[in-house]
Amino acid sequence: MRVTVAEIVQRLGGDCIGDASLVIDRIATLDAAAPSQIAFLANPRYRAQLASTRAGCVIVAPALAEEAAARGAAIVTPDPYLYYARLSQWWTESDSAGTPGVHPSAVVEAGATIAASATIGALCFVGADAVIGAHTRIAARVTVGERCVIGARCIVHSGVVIGADGFGFAPHEGTWVKIAQLGAVRIGDDVEIGANTCIDRGALGDTVIEDGVKLDNLIQIGHNVRIGAHSAMAGCVGVAGSTKIGRYCTFGGGARVLGHLELADHVHITATTVVSRSIAKPGQYSGMFPMDDNASWEKNAATLRQLHRLRERLRALEKKMT
Amino acid sequence: MRVTVAEIVQRLGGDCIGDASLVIDRIATLDAAAPSQIAFLANPRYRAQLASTRAGCVIVAPALAEEAAARGAAIVTPDPYLYYARLSQWWTESDSAGTPGVHPSAVVEAGATIAASATIGALCFVGADAVIGAHTRIAARVTVGERCVIGARCIVHSGVVIGADGFGFAPHEGTWVKIAQLGAVRIGDDVEIGANTCIDRGALGDTVIEDGVKLDNLIQIGHNVRIGAHSAMAGCVGVAGSTKIGRYCTFGGGARVLGHLELADHVHITATTVVSRSIAKPGQYSGMFPMDDNASWEKNAATLRQLHRLRERLRALEKKMT
Amino acid sequence: MRVTVAEIVQRLGGDCIGDASLVIDRIATLDAAAPSQIAFLANPRYRAQLASTRAGCVIVAPALAEEAAARGAAIVTPDPYLYYARLSQWWTESDSAGTPGVHPSAVVEAGATIAASATIGALCFVGADAVIGAHTRIAARVTVGERCVIGARCIVHSGVVIGADGFGFAPHEGTWVKIAQLGAVRIGDDVEIGANTCIDRGALGDTVIEDGVKLDNLIQIGHNVRIGAHSAMAGCVGVAGSTKIGRYCTFGGGARVLGHLELADHVHITATTVVSRSIAKPGQYSGMFPMDDNASWEKNAATLRQLHRLRERLRALEKKMT
Repeated sequence: MRVTVAEIVQRLGGDCIGDASLVIDRIATLDAAAPSQIAFLANPRYRAQLASTRAGCVIVAPALAEEAAARGAAIVTPDPYLYYARLSQWWTESDSAGTPGVHPSAVVEAGATIAASATIGALCFVGADAVIGAHTRIAARVTVGERCVIGARCIVHSGVVIGADGFGFAPHEGTWVKIAQLGAVRIGDDVEIGANTCIDRGALGDTVIEDGVKLDNLIQIGHNVRIGAHSAMAGCVGVAGSTKIGRYCTFGGGARVLGHLELADHVHITATTVVSRSIAKPGQYSGMFPMDDNASWEKNAATLRQLHRLRERLRALEKKMT
Repeated sequence: MRVTVAEIVQRLGGDCIGDASLVIDRIATLDAAAPSQIAFLANPRYRAQLASTRAGCVIVAPALAEEAAARGAAIVTPDPYLYYARLSQWWTESDSAGTPGVHPSAVVEAGATIAASATIGALCFVGADAVIGAHTRIAARVTVGERCVIGARCIVHSGVVIGADGFGFAPHEGTWVKIAQLGAVRIGDDVEIGANTCIDRGALGDTVIEDGVKLDNLIQIGHNVRIGAHSAMAGCVGVAGSTKIGRYCTFGGGARVLGHLELADHVHITATTVVSRSIAKPGQYSGMFPMDDNASWEKNAATLRQLHRLRERLRALEKKMT
Repeated sequence: MRVTVAEIVQRLGGDCIGDASLVIDRIATLDAAAPSQIAFLANPRYRAQLASTRAGCVIVAPALAEEAAARGAAIVTPDPYLYYARLSQWWTESDSAGTPGVHPSAVVEAGATIAASATIGALCFVGADAVIGAHTRIAARVTVGERCVIGARCIVHSGVVIGADGFGFAPHEGTWVKIAQLGAVRIGDDVEIGANTCIDRGALGDTVIEDGVKLDNLIQIGHNVRIGAHSAMAGCVGVAGSTKIGRYCTFGGGARVLGHLELADHVHITATTVVSRSIAKPGQYSGMFPMDDNASWEKNAATLRQLHRLRERLRALEKKMT
C-alpha cells in the first residue's frame, strides 16, 4: 500500500504537520523506520527515539507536537496507539482481505448456517447446526463443533477447537463414567480467539464468551465457563469449569483460574497467578513465584517448606521477650 | 429425546416416586430446569434448590426421598451423579451417534488397521500401520502417527496429536543432534483424550496410556511416559519424559510432573503443583503459590527472596536468647 | 533394518570390540535389549546394567571398554549418547524416510515457494508467499501463514501454527481495537518445532527463530520474539511478545518468560520458572514452588501470605535485643 500523509489524515483524522504530500509505503517502529515509512510514539519510554528516528512521518500526542514538527512530517492525535491500530487495520484491509466464502477443502456438516459475508478457511470442520455470524473470519484448520454459535466480526485463528466435550465424569468403583456434554458454546460479536485455543461445550447449559472478548493462543476454557464482555486473556491461560468471569477483566499469560469461582468486573490478574478463590472486588491480584539465581532459590525454597515452623519459632521468641 | 420417567427407571434403575407418566424432554440443572425437564441433586451444597426448582422430576439419594416427594416426581438412587452420567449418555446415544466409518476427507496411510465399528472424523490423519480399536471415536482434525495403537471405546477429541516425535537431542559442540524417536504410542481401552492434547512417541520403547485414563485438553505427555489405569488429568497438565504414573491418580489443572520420576497409585496432585520428585506414598500433594492483592504479593514475594537469611537471623536471635 | 556391528562402525566410526559380524536388528535400552539388539551406556547411573544387559552389542565410553569387552561385542566412542543419536537417525532414514513433495490433501496458496526436497504433509495449509526450505519436513496438519519463511532441514510436527496474528490491541473506551499484525515469522535452518506449538507473526517487524533452535510441544511464542541460535525449550513454555532470548539458552518445561525482556546467551531456566526481568549474566535461574504433602503446604502457604509481617516482627525483636 502507498498513501500520502494527507490521505491518512483524511481517513483517520488527526492534525497534519509538515509535508502532507509525503508518500508512505509502510508502518514501522521508530527505531527501524525508513524515510518512506510512518512510525508512532505511544510509550513515553521511547521518547528519545523521536529525535533519532528516520521515519518520514511520526504519529504523536499533542504534548509532543512541537518536538515532532522540528524533525519533519507528523500526525497529531490524542491517542497515537489507537491511531496506529486503526492505520494498521486499513493497511491489511487493502492488502489481504480474503474473499468471503467457504474454502472448498473445508468440511461443513448439514444444518450449519454460515453468513454470506463470513470466511471459512481451508481444512476447517464446521459441525451440524453450527452458526457462523456475518463478517466472521475463521482461519485454516479450525474446528467448530455441532450447535456452537459464533457471532459477527469474530476472528478465529488456526488450530482452534470450539465445542469439544467438557471434562466431566462420575467416579464409580475406581473408574470414570462419562457425562455426555449436552450443551454447546455461544460466542458473541467481535471476539478474537488465538491459535490452538480450546473452548469446551457445556455439560447441560452452554459455555459463553461475551462480546468483544480477546483470547490469545493455547488457552483452555472449561465447560460452562462464562467470560464477560471485553475481557482479555494472554497466552496459555486456563479457566476451569463453571467459573464466571466479569467484564473488562484482564489475565496475564499463563494465569490459571480454578473451577466454580466468580470474578467481578474489572479484575486484573498478573501473569502466571493462580486464582483459587472468588474475587468480589475490582483490582490487581498476583501470585507469581519470584525468580532467582539457582543457588539462592534452592535455599529459599527449602526454607519455604519450613515457613510455618519458622513462624512458630518466632512466636516463641516473642513470648520469651515479653 | 422425549421419554417418560417410567421409561428412564426401566432402563437405568432406581425407585420412582410420583407421576411416572411424566414426559421428560431435557436434562437440566436444578436452578434452570423447566417442568418438562429432569434435574439431579448430587452436591449437598445445592440442597436448598430442591425446594425451589421447577424441574418436573428430580434424581435424589435415599436420604432426600421424602423431601423430593413433597414437591413432585423423583427418582431415588444411591448415587444421583452416576445416575445423571448414565442418563446423559443415553440422551446423546439417540441424538447424535454418528455412523462408524472413515470420513472421506480423512487421510489414512497404507497399513493402518481401523475397526469397522470405529469412527474417524473429517480431516484426520492416520499414519502407516496405526491401529484404531472397536467403537473408538476420533473427532475431526486429529493426528494418529505411524505405528501408534489406540484401544477400544476410546474418544479422541479434535486437534489431538498422538505420536509426534519425543523431544530428544544429544548435545554436540553447542548444537543439538536429533535422536530419532523409534518407539510409538500405545493407548488402552476406554481412554478419553481432550482437544489439542499431545502424546509423544517413545525414543526406544513406547509411551503407554493404560485403560480408562482420562486426559483433558492441551495436555503434554512426553516420550516414554506411562500413565496407569484410570488416572485422570485436568487441562494444561504437562508430564515430562520417562515418568511413570500409577493407577487411580488425579492431577488438577496446570499441574506439571518433571521427567524420570515414579508416582505410586492413588496419588492426587493439586492444580498447578509442580511434582519435582518421585512419590511413593498415596495421598494429596500440593505446591500452589497463594494469590493475594497485588500490593501484598509484592511485599511478600520480595521477602521470600530473603527467606533463608530471615531464618538465619531468627536462629541468631534464638542463640542470643538461650 | 538389519546391519552388522562392522557396518555400523564403518559408517559412524568408533572402535569395535568382539564379534563384528553380529547382526543387529534394533536399538534398545540396556535393560530391555535382546541378544540381537544394540544398547548404549551414556549415564553413569546405569552402569550396573552393563553387567546384566542381554544386548548383543553395547556402545560405551573408553573408560568402560574393558568392562564391556568382558561381556561381548562393544563399540567404543568418546560420546556414546551422541553415537546413539547418529545411529538412531540412520535407523529411521532407511525405515520411513517419506518421499519429498506436497501431499495432495495439503492446501498451498498462490505464491508459496516450496523446495523440491521439502515434504509437506497431509492436510497442511501453506499461505500465500510462504517459503519452505530444502529438506524441511512438515508433518500432517500444520499451518504456515502467509509470508512466513522456514529454512532448510527443519522438522515441523503436527498441529503447529506458524504465523497466526500476534496478540495486539489498543484499549479504547473499555473495548479493544485490533492492531493488524503486518510482520511475519522467519525460522532459520535446522529448527525443530513440536506438536501444537504456536509462533505468532510480528506486529511490524518479524518474529525470528534462529538456526538450530529446538522447541518442544505446546509452546507459545509471542509476536516479535527473537530466539537465539541453538537455544532449546521443553514442553509448554510460553514467551510473551518482543522478548529477545540469547543463543545456547535452555528452558525447562512450563517455564514462562514475560514480554519485552532480554536474556543473554547461555542462560538456563529451570522448569516452571517465571522469568520476570531481563537476565544479563549467563547461569541457571529458578523459581519453582516446592511441592509438599497437602497439609504441610496449606500451613506454609497461609504463612507465606504474612511473610512480610513476619519479617517486621523479626526486625522488632532484633531491635529489642540490641
